[in-house]
Order: sequence, then C-alpha cells, then structure tokens
Amino acid sequence: MDLNSAKRMYIRANNSENLDPVGIHFHIGSQLTELKPIYESAEIVADLVRSLQNINIELKFFDVGGGLGVKYDNETLIPTYDYAQAILGTLKGLDLTVICEPGRFLTANAGYFVSKVLYEKQNGEKKFVVIDGAMNDLLRPALYKAYHKIEAITDSTGEERAVDIVGPVCESGDFFAKDYPLPELAHNDLVVVHSAGAYGFGMGSNYNTRGRSAEVAVEAGEARLIRRRESFDDLIALEKEFLD
Amino acid sequence: MDLNSAKRMYIRANNSENLDPVGIHFHIGSQLTELKPIYESAEIVADLVRSLQNINIELKFFDVGGGLGVKYDNETLIPTYDYAQAILGTLKGLDLTVICEPGRFLTANAGYFVSKVLYEKQNGEKKFVVIDGAMNDLLRPALYKAYHKIEAITDSTGEERAVDIVGPVCESGDFFAKDYPLPELAHNDLVVVHSAGAYGFGMGSNYNTRGRSAEVAVEAGEARLIRRRESFDDLIALEKEFLD
Repeated sequence: MDLNSAKRMYIRANNSENLDPVGIHFHIGSQLTELKPIYESAEIVADLVRSLQNINIELKFFDVGGGLGVKYDNETLIPTYDYAQAILGTLKGLDLTVICEPGRFLTANAGYFVSKVLYEKQNGEKKFVVIDGAMNDLLRPALYKAYHKIEAITDSTGEERAVDIVGPVCESGDFFAKDYPLPELAHNDLVVVHSAGAYGFGMGSNYNTRGRSAEVAVEAGEARLIRRRESFDDLIALEKEFLD
Repeated sequence: MDLNSAKRMYIRANNSENLDPVGIHFHIGSQLTELKPIYESAEIVADLVRSLQNINIELKFFDVGGGLGVKYDNETLIPTYDYAQAILGTLKGLDLTVICEPGRFLTANAGYFVSKVLYEKQNGEKKFVVIDGAMNDLLRPALYKAYHKIEAITDSTGEERAVDIVGPVCESGDFFAKDYPLPELAHNDLVVVHSAGAYGFGMGSNYNTRGRSAEVAVEAGEARLIRRRESFDDLIALEKEFLD
C-alpha cells in the first residue's frame, strides 16, 4: 500500500480496541543486486516510523523483507555488511528490532538437484541430453526462464557442445537449460543442477504422476537421507481412503 | 524424429532379436483447433506405414497422439466426427487399430477449481480480488499465461469492474486472471475457475507450504469427496521418518 494509506491504517489500528500496531514491513522485490533501492526504501519507511512516533505510535519491529540477490550466474552480490550498514544508517535515533528475510540468500546455493542421464538425442541440428529429472522437480527454468548452472559428473573427456538439457515430461517447457556447454554424456552419468536450494523442491509437483525426489543432507562430509522419494502409493494415498 | 530416421529404426527393430515393431505414434502439438495439420500429419505417417508394409514390416497400431483443442474461451473446436473421418480417410487399405489420446479434451471442462474470496484490495488504479486459492493449485495462468473463465457465486448485484484475481502466495505470478470483469465481492463469496480438470490438480504443488486442495466428484447431482485436502502433517510425513 502507499504511504498515506499505511499511515491512516496505523492510526486506525492504534485507535482500535482489538489491534496493537507493533511493526512495519516492506519488500521491494526479489534477486536484488544493488543496494541503492533497498537503502532508499528503508529511508522512506524509517521516515514513516518517525512520523508515527511524532503522534505517539511507537513501533518495535522494522522488517526489511527479503530480496537479497543470489549468485545463479555472474550476478554481482550486495555485500551483507554494506546491506546491514545501509539499513542501520536509516534508523538513527530509532530503537527498533530489525527483521530480515534472506531465505533464498541462505539456501539457494546450499542445494543441488542431482539427476541421471537417460540418453542423448540428436534432432536435426539440435542435441538433447535427456535426464531423469524434470520440470516437476525444478520448475524455475520453465516458469521464470531462470538460469541454473549445470555440471556433469562423467568420465567423458570429449569437448563441450551446446546441448539442451531436458526431462522426460511431455511438453516443451520441460527443460533445465538450452544451448548449454556439456561434454558427450553416457547413460547414468550424473547431471548436477546448481542453486536448487530455494524454489526447487518447494515448488515440486507430481506432474506426469512423477513422485517427488528424495532429499539428502550433507553435513561434515556425511550424507544422510532426510526425506524419502515419493512412491506411487504416496501419490494416491489421499484418494485411496475414499475408494469403495 | 524425422521420417528417414523413423524408417531406419523400424528396419533395425525388425531385424533385432529383441524388438518387435508393432505401432507408430505422432503428436503434433497441443490445443489444436484446425483439422488440416492433423490430417496432413496422419497422411504422412500413414504413407510411412505403407512404405514399411512394402518391406514386410506390418504395424498394428496407429497412435494419432493428442492435442484436440478444448474450449477455454472462444476457441472453435474440431468436430470429433470430422476428426475421426479425417484420420480414417488416411488409412485406406490399412488394417490398423487407431489409438488416440484426448485426455485434456475429455477432462479439462469436467473440472472446476472453487475458491473463497478473502477480500478485495485497491492499490492505486488497480483493484484486486484476493482468493484463498493460489498458483500452487492451478499453475496454468502463471506458467502459460493461460486464459481460464472465472465465475463468481455471490449475492452481489453490483456492476462488473475489471479486477485482477490473485492468490495469497508471495509473488507476482500468483494470479488467475488480469483485468477480468467481476462484480464487487465479499469475504467468503465463491470464485469458480473453469476448465481446471486438466493440468490443474495434476500440476499442483506445496509451494508456500500450502496443502493441495480436496477433490470432489459430482455424479448424478450428488457430490462426494474423492481426495481429502492435504494437512500440514501430510506435507512433512516423508521427512518425519528421518527425524532423530
């Protein structure tokens, strides 16, 4: 909402028997790589906090939202120290608890989506690497045309060629990357899709009646299963209860 | 694959000890509203079947794939009789079982996604109707910019205004329609999204930790639950097995 509406609502909440305004929140977008718009927003919102203070509405929490950019490709990241200093710089004279929501920043590059190569396929000029992972496992390329770094674990020593890395789902949206350089791959070689720790499994579906993948945590060099792969029985469990 | 590759593969399969070529399949695309490209493809593939017959490779199945268009908006549909006649017309002199895959054609308009209105919201010039359904329930608008007819079940007698119908998920892709005419709606009015019987629940996810919706079948005027709504416990069940 705009600033005037926000101010009106704080006043209304403050006058209400049932509401107690305790904080303010803003979020200006996702995958931000420049500090300036964040700083400017924080400054505007901090001014609103001060103008509320002037009419005796005292807030406790200043939530700066999320949006801190992540390195998918060659993005320049905002140094976290500078980020903190910029926000703190707008809060001079205010006694507020700062809340931030850097979910993707913390998890995106902590997760990898690992898939096996099924086979390679040539169609005219076009070379496809078909893997057993699909858009139901990682929707970002199909939904946002998002870039994900891809790495092949293979004994192949061949030169890299531009390939489309695709899944087995029945539509053209089922891809992980297009014209991506990978060496010749064999059945059961591994393809590792980077930056899958945010908006990866969380957006996963059972499209094409595909069970969602298992999740494995790696801690101090030890890998352990933390979620098992969905079986066909898992997929139909909530329907079976109602079968005659 | 192209026709020459296909022919080579049939010959190879026929000469193999382990393979027995029994059918042929083509699929030229989705949501087709013209018969001509289907007819032309069937003719090309039927000619391939005849040229295989000439070298004593006898197929039994002729799979014409799917793609039969569905009425989402004002599409002109292919009459099913004409569709069948066009395909049969290409098969003269051939003794084949025809297989077709009209999944969406059969189910899309047999399913509705029903959601409650949470509230209306004005932001500058823009009016939003926020409903409790979201992109995790029906991804087609976000993924394909697909049109779905939307109907409101309400006592409202107000004039229709152009509104964006959106869900509560934290991103701009969470919408069902933009600038869509609906009358003023109140909390708990129902919004019915049409044509949700194909690529609706099937592409559903738990994005934003949202349980997938219940499914209800209506038969001879009687409604019955056929899949129960997912609970939070359902969402974490496959993880809980691995908690210490």
